[in-house]
Amino acid sequence: MAKIVITYGTFDMFHVGHLNLFKRLKAMGEYLIVAVSTDEFNAKKGKKTLIPFHERVEIVRALRFVDEVIPEVSWDQKRTNILERKVDVFAIGDDWKGEFDSLSDICQVVYLERTPGISTTELKSLSKAL
Amino acid sequence: MAKIVITYGTFDMFHVGHLNLFKRLKAMGEYLIVAVSTDEFNAKKGKKTLIPFHERVEIVRALRFVDEVIPEVSWDQKRTNILERKVDVFAIGDDWKGEFDSLSDICQVVYLERTPGISTTELKSLSKAL
Repeated sequence: MAKIVITYGTFDMFHVGHLNLFKRLKAMGEYLIVAVSTDEFNAKKGKKTLIPFHERVEIVRALRFVDEVIPEVSWDQKRTNILERKVDVFAIGDDWKGEFDSLSDICQVVYLERTPGISTTELKSLSKAL
Repeated sequence: MAKIVITYGTFDMFHVGHLNLFKRLKAMGEYLIVAVSTDEFNAKKGKKTLIPFHERVEIVRALRFVDEVIPEVSWDQKRTNILERKVDVFAIGDDWKGEFDSLSDICQVVYLERTPGISTTELKSLSKAL
């Protein structure tokens, strides 16, 4: 059976850091599910995006490494997603280190190092300097 | 033989307008070549990008609709590319309307409407407002 990997995120202003993350995730298994945060969920978190949900989804879905895109609408959907989809690996950036250890009873939990020097926040400030 | 489509551009700060363009181009044939402008070529045109060439290439190459990525280093490489690669369709945004009609002796020349309201320029100013 194919090894299934899942990740969660907003993926605003798509950049090579996102792409590298997906490549590394796909290399950890055979089937990669990406859960993309909806605008409503981001609003609850006090997070404002530049790019609307449906466009962020379209871009992630267009990538060769990504097999499936689902919406992320709440904090507590992770356990349900992992159980229902028989996910083997839950992976997320190490800015979340330790936060999702409670999922390790149902799957492997991996925190990945971020690509140095690339983030949406940095892109936004670079862009302001232009 | 597969119908070959080619386009040229910078594709800075990747967005859904670029994606829609590639989808439409791919639908016009079977094999899509995207020529991405190098930083040096952009400098000659007086154009400054936020994202360096190798990252812009990586993102375009990761898209399902794109079969091949080549560098764009000069204005006059188009004719050579089209002849050498037996390209059937040269397509580009209609902000270039009429500019490349001279290529119509060797292939079909198509000017595509841009996705309304989406451009790198608009992204940059939106981003400044955040």
